[in-house]
Amino acid sequence: MYRVGVDLGGTNITVGIIDENLTIIGRSKLKTNLPRHFDEVFSDIIRAIYFAIEDADISIIDISSIGVGVPGAVDSQSGVIDFSSNLKIYNMSIKSELEKTFNKPVFITNDANCAALAEKKVGAGRNAKNLIAITLGTGIGGGVIINDKLITGVNGATGEIGHMVIDFDGIECGCGRKGCWEKYASATALARQTKEALAKDLYKKSIIWEMIENDLSKIGARTAFEAMKNGDKIGKQIVDGYTKYLACGITNLINIFQPDVLCIGGGMSNEGDTLLIPVIRIVEKERYSLYSSKQTKICIAELKNDAGIIGAALLNEI
Amino acid sequence: MYRVGVDLGGTNITVGIIDENLTIIGRSKLKTNLPRHFDEVFSDIIRAIYFAIEDADISIIDISSIGVGVPGAVDSQSGVIDFSSNLKIYNMSIKSELEKTFNKPVFITNDANCAALAEKKVGAGRNAKNLIAITLGTGIGGGVIINDKLITGVNGATGEIGHMVIDFDGIECGCGRKGCWEKYASATALARQTKEALAKDLYKKSIIWEMIENDLSKIGARTAFEAMKNGDKIGKQIVDGYTKYLACGITNLINIFQPDVLCIGGGMSNEGDTLLIPVIRIVEKERYSLYSSKQTKICIAELKNDAGIIGAALLNEI
Repeated sequence: MYRVGVDLGGTNITVGIIDENLTIIGRSKLKTNLPRHFDEVFSDIIRAIYFAIEDADISIIDISSIGVGVPGAVDSQSGVIDFSSNLKIYNMSIKSELEKTFNKPVFITNDANCAALAEKKVGAGRNAKNLIAITLGTGIGGGVIINDKLITGVNGATGEIGHMVIDFDGIECGCGRKGCWEKYASATALARQTKEALAKDLYKKSIIWEMIENDLSKIGARTAFEAMKNGDKIGKQIVDGYTKYLACGITNLINIFQPDVLCIGGGMSNEGDTLLIPVIRIVEKERYSLYSSKQTKICIAELKNDAGIIGAALLNEI
Repeated sequence: MYRVGVDLGGTNITVGIIDENLTIIGRSKLKTNLPRHFDEVFSDIIRAIYFAIEDADISIIDISSIGVGVPGAVDSQSGVIDFSSNLKIYNMSIKSELEKTFNKPVFITNDANCAALAEKKVGAGRNAKNLIAITLGTGIGGGVIINDKLITGVNGATGEIGHMVIDFDGIECGCGRKGCWEKYASATALARQTKEALAKDLYKKSIIWEMIENDLSKIGARTAFEAMKNGDKIGKQIVDGYTKYLACGITNLINIFQPDVLCIGGGMSNEGDTLLIPVIRIVEKERYSLYSSKQTKICIAELKNDAGIIGAALLNEI
């Protein structure tokens, strides 16, 4: 039998079919095309599932379950999406609708939980009883596995580590708080920090100006890293500042959880060791467990963009 | 059979004997008397256990197990105290020594973990699968129970929620970080905030001056609360500021864990609703799970000073 994993993102609806070896044997991708009515998005989820089944060259009767990862607060028990700022939906029961359509068991959770589950099963956290998977992208997402199980809490809205305040009364966040970690250590935050640094670079000493052809709108999360690799001092200052914020939140999580593994995914993780090594250096100095012989392994997530669909497909196991 | 719980604190060694109904039937207390060599402290732990057994009017053969709660990072598996800043010890194997002395199974963990376990079994967290017990005292301690089990992580040093940075590059903490939550929301922090506010009260408008007979060393954690209850504006400002810091860390924990129950213990919890209600008001506005129908219950811990010994006595169950 095969399982379907749906990664319902703000940009794409991505579907994968996995076999019993957890290998992806079929795929499909449709644009989420927001803003539009969620009924239309829902129709495209169904179409994307059929496309992936076709791509895998199997039939709907070969499917044992469907899992869906959603960016937002999901109550896995009831299958209701309480809130998703990305999808602009509240209180939407997607599980029962999909069950009616396909007559298969449907499981649904937060997308960061899916990523954690996938990394635990076939990625950076194999053999880890306790794992935190963080995703550095538009925001910061987190999935937490304790004693081999996803933590889901009282309402399924767990793991919102991006909305942990690390700078009291700091930058305003869309969630209503001030100083949330994701305003300092997401990919979006790094791009903003790069723009802010350039605004102060009055004599245009940084090579970034040339890289972006003086067009600030061309700045992305990779810009400062690229400049640093090419010897740019301002680029290095930006990356160093960003690294401190990233390490701050990671150290917080380690002081709370002391997981076996903490893996970093999302767009920023493409920087690999350039990102990882300076973060580890700060965490090693700051964590509370300094005197312990056993420490959390901090590493880059392995499954990249497939983590979401693999994790969603595995949801029937939890 | 009966169980022994030892709460090894920086000030007192407190021992309790519990029966099968988890009722304390015998007690003893000796001063920890630090600084002195840990061998002497260890001898007093043994004496205190015998005193409690005597107080319970039972015999050593009636004891099935001994549990010990320690303020610091403890590896429960190996039974080694990796580090305790309060007790000024590193890498001390107390479990095997006690097992040799009493020929009973001995269990050891962090004192905040003991408090969480006790609140979960017989206190504020009865029936909660997921519970966080925070202790607001000299510092801030935390014990976290997920799916009915204490989280212990890779090394047992979990739950150091007081060393979660909430104010980036803020006040220096003894742990080596800057801006740790306990520098803003512990009882010690409130006393410091009160002193700082009085230093700015140049015209001595606050009634606190009278309460402390102009002697700043008389300021404690309760001072600002007492002044506020007597209508003092500066007292209210201090408490309001403190409440925001406390609510900030609690909201962080809820965004991460969404536990069924989060209970507040330690000295500060004696303020009861005066402390609790304004905190809940902020958390309700700020938590990420705004749209969920199920929310964390925030309450005052029930077991007060007995949480440590009851939890320690229960350690054989985990």
